[in-house]
Amino acid sequence: MRGQTSGIHTIILRLEMEPNIAFIQIANAIHETGGEIVAVDTVSRSKIVSVRDITVSVPNTENEAELINGIGKVPGVKIMNISDRTFLMHIGGKLEVNSRVPIKNRDDLSHVYTPGVARVCMALHEDPAKAYSLTIKRNTVAVVTDGTAVLGLGDIGPIAAMPVMEGKAMLFKEMAGIDSFPICINTKDTEEIIKIVKSIAPVFGGINLEDISSPRCFEIEERLLRELDIPVFHDDQHGTAVVMLAGLINALKIVGKDMAEIKVVFSGIGAAGVACTKMLIEAGVKHIVGATRSAGILHRGENYDNPMFEWYSQHTNPDSITGSLSDAMNDADVFIGLSGPNVIDAEDLKKMARDPIVFAMANPIPEILPEVAEPFVRVMATGRSDYPNQLNNVLCFPGIFRGALDCQATKINEEMKLAAAYAIASIVGEDELNEQYIIPSVFNTRVVEIVRKKVIQAAMESGVARKIPHEFA
Amino acid sequence: MRGQTSGIHTIILRLEMEPNIAFIQIANAIHETGGEIVAVDTVSRSKIVSVRDITVSVPNTENEAELINGIGKVPGVKIMNISDRTFLMHIGGKLEVNSRVPIKNRDDLSHVYTPGVARVCMALHEDPAKAYSLTIKRNTVAVVTDGTAVLGLGDIGPIAAMPVMEGKAMLFKEMAGIDSFPICINTKDTEEIIKIVKSIAPVFGGINLEDISSPRCFEIEERLLRELDIPVFHDDQHGTAVVMLAGLINALKIVGKDMAEIKVVFSGIGAAGVACTKMLIEAGVKHIVGATRSAGILHRGENYDNPMFEWYSQHTNPDSITGSLSDAMNDADVFIGLSGPNVIDAEDLKKMARDPIVFAMANPIPEILPEVAEPFVRVMATGRSDYPNQLNNVLCFPGIFRGALDCQATKINEEMKLAAAYAIASIVGEDELNEQYIIPSVFNTRVVEIVRKKVIQAAMESGVARKIPHEFA
Repeated sequence: MRGQTSGIHTIILRLEMEPNIAFIQIANAIHETGGEIVAVDTVSRSKIVSVRDITVSVPNTENEAELINGIGKVPGVKIMNISDRTFLMHIGGKLEVNSRVPIKNRDDLSHVYTPGVARVCMALHEDPAKAYSLTIKRNTVAVVTDGTAVLGLGDIGPIAAMPVMEGKAMLFKEMAGIDSFPICINTKDTEEIIKIVKSIAPVFGGINLEDISSPRCFEIEERLLRELDIPVFHDDQHGTAVVMLAGLINALKIVGKDMAEIKVVFSGIGAAGVACTKMLIEAGVKHIVGATRSAGILHRGENYDNPMFEWYSQHTNPDSITGSLSDAMNDADVFIGLSGPNVIDAEDLKKMARDPIVFAMANPIPEILPEVAEPFVRVMATGRSDYPNQLNNVLCFPGIFRGALDCQATKINEEMKLAAAYAIASIVGEDELNEQYIIPSVFNTRVVEIVRKKVIQAAMESGVARKIPHEFA
Repeated sequence: MRGQTSGIHTIILRLEMEPNIAFIQIANAIHETGGEIVAVDTVSRSKIVSVRDITVSVPNTENEAELINGIGKVPGVKIMNISDRTFLMHIGGKLEVNSRVPIKNRDDLSHVYTPGVARVCMALHEDPAKAYSLTIKRNTVAVVTDGTAVLGLGDIGPIAAMPVMEGKAMLFKEMAGIDSFPICINTKDTEEIIKIVKSIAPVFGGINLEDISSPRCFEIEERLLRELDIPVFHDDQHGTAVVMLAGLINALKIVGKDMAEIKVVFSGIGAAGVACTKMLIEAGVKHIVGATRSAGILHRGENYDNPMFEWYSQHTNPDSITGSLSDAMNDADVFIGLSGPNVIDAEDLKKMARDPIVFAMANPIPEILPEVAEPFVRVMATGRSDYPNQLNNVLCFPGIFRGALDCQATKINEEMKLAAAYAIASIVGEDELNEQYIIPSVFNTRVVEIVRKKVIQAAMESGVARKIPHEFA
């Protein structure tokens, strides 16, 4: 769902120049390597050297290297520092923790800290459920990772995962007003991670698991779900599944097919693939076949070492068909890819039933490029923002947590996930719906509120809401 | 150092009144129980009932109960809700997490989140030390507790400890611009707490341990100090010790005595007492005697079950004197109390050497009340804000962490603590110094900056600074 090539970006070069250097020499070096000067600022100037910041836009990373190389060759010029806008936006981190209440004088201090705070502590000691009104719990979510499956980058560890977790926390705040804080855990031991999250849970109203590799992510989520009384949500699984289902709900309206009738082929049976499959089964899909490049079509009668393959073979493929991914494509109504680049081709699409729906969600390069698929499909979606129909988790997690927190849900259950998917789908009106527009933009401001409402309703109906927000009373 | 009786506070009563009730009946009930009406707001009004919020100031908690009782007896009036200002300031918690960078459009998103963020992750993966520039680490401190020794309230657990930890985090921000976040751990197991803090440490530039009971706090702090490369500071021990020493430095100037010559008596040999004793030894004090009510004067030749007592008997009391606390007071220059109310009396003070210095730091009720001690002491300090010379940790922890973070210190060592104490003491100018003013106010805006500077200097000189802030270069 995430990650893609970056495209044009902006870098800022700090140059130390001897006084006899004409700026045109630098301008030429930048121009020759495809860069465009955006701004020049003089930082300091003396008889010996002058220091300038040159802001340059470059088309891509290769040009950047060439450009730096080119400038480095100009005699009398030294590159002191290179920063680009992405890095500049990360300087000092992307989050801050602020007081919600001012401390202007001794009287304020006596209420928010000692001695007044003692009475609030005792009220919580007598009734810990008051944490939802007297502490940050009611609006605070932990973004938890061990850094083992960060974006498409793999096991880069908890420190390197930080920028993603901070970014996620920003999105929680910007999209849904939720305070969240990164918990980056420096162990890969499943039991330890479970223990740590359980131990620090008192502060939080919900746990968002992020970028934890499979199959550990299943055990961690399942155990925390069972052992904690606050929502635990592995976004890479369920966020992906909810948004995929939202897209499918609308795509099926376009082609006039029914969940119960369609045949769906999955490529990529990882954490997200399994979660999407479970979500489709919940939504009423009966004919699902999964395939991987190594194992082919997963089917009963075969033993798989991979526990996810084993589960898959037992719960899908009712007709026990065998063969390759390409074989599975025969008469398929829907293809859902959560695997890697270019695993299917135009020939595979030609085998599909009428009005094919293709969700090629691998990132950064989808299972088949939209320009290749276009002549053969009716509805196409990817995880990328540069094609129509971007299936992006940002459509789900802010609203689903907003709803769960507002009704103090004990969990985010299947009912709430289904409700979220239908809510997201409902944003695209019947009159707006078309092949290029099956899913709202991540900047559609109505998404969070509508998802929130439907999620609260589902939580109340399924008995996991501990509080009825007053507009539902 | 903290906690004291609350005094006058404000409560807000939401009353449902039948239409025939005259407001004077309620006003009378409030007046008769010692309350003072501050404001009246009509919330809603119908033919059946009207709802009003009455803001009332009450002298103390007993009056509050009486007042509520009195209003409850007025026929036709129902108390719907009672909130006081302290509780109102806690509604929804006292902290929020905000984005430091706006996400206004898809371009912003592509820098702070996918796809741009991936390059920042990889930069951190290649060089984890960059966490200090590219993540929140450089300005973020964990406030860690297990809720076992919260204020004077004891083992009230991690949830009930939250308001104190949130308050501490507010003070970090308001006083020193430090982002901090409460980590309230739901286990009392020393090894587990150590493991948890170590595991979540990547995000943080420092760890402030808070309200963890002794002797567990020693083991936890010592192990984390050894096993982490960021500062770990148990404020209840070292914050108290630093501020106590700051006060003593100035008190000794007034009485014209020297650290190396004075005789100091301690009452209360808990975590803070031991930390203060160690600090005084570091500062050059040679004659220290500790006593407790149960064990009397701690001395060599006695075996103590309590490991703190055992340590104390081996490291203090060079003349191996014996007897009671009262015996220890003979010829003492300084009394430092970190024990409980009223453990010494005027007779004990009369036994002290000329110009007695008494720091009676027990909270809320000091070892001896200032009004009782006054005729017999030269300099008196307490932990309370309603007497002169308040010894308050708030003078230390914001500045000491600001300094430690700004030079990316690997630890807060003895040199830095001593520097902080002398820095705090230095705020009171020679011309301002007097018996009533040995320590600056917690609202003195110069404290943090001066402590920061001296702490950075000490960190650089003692070789624990990883970065030289540019004003020191």
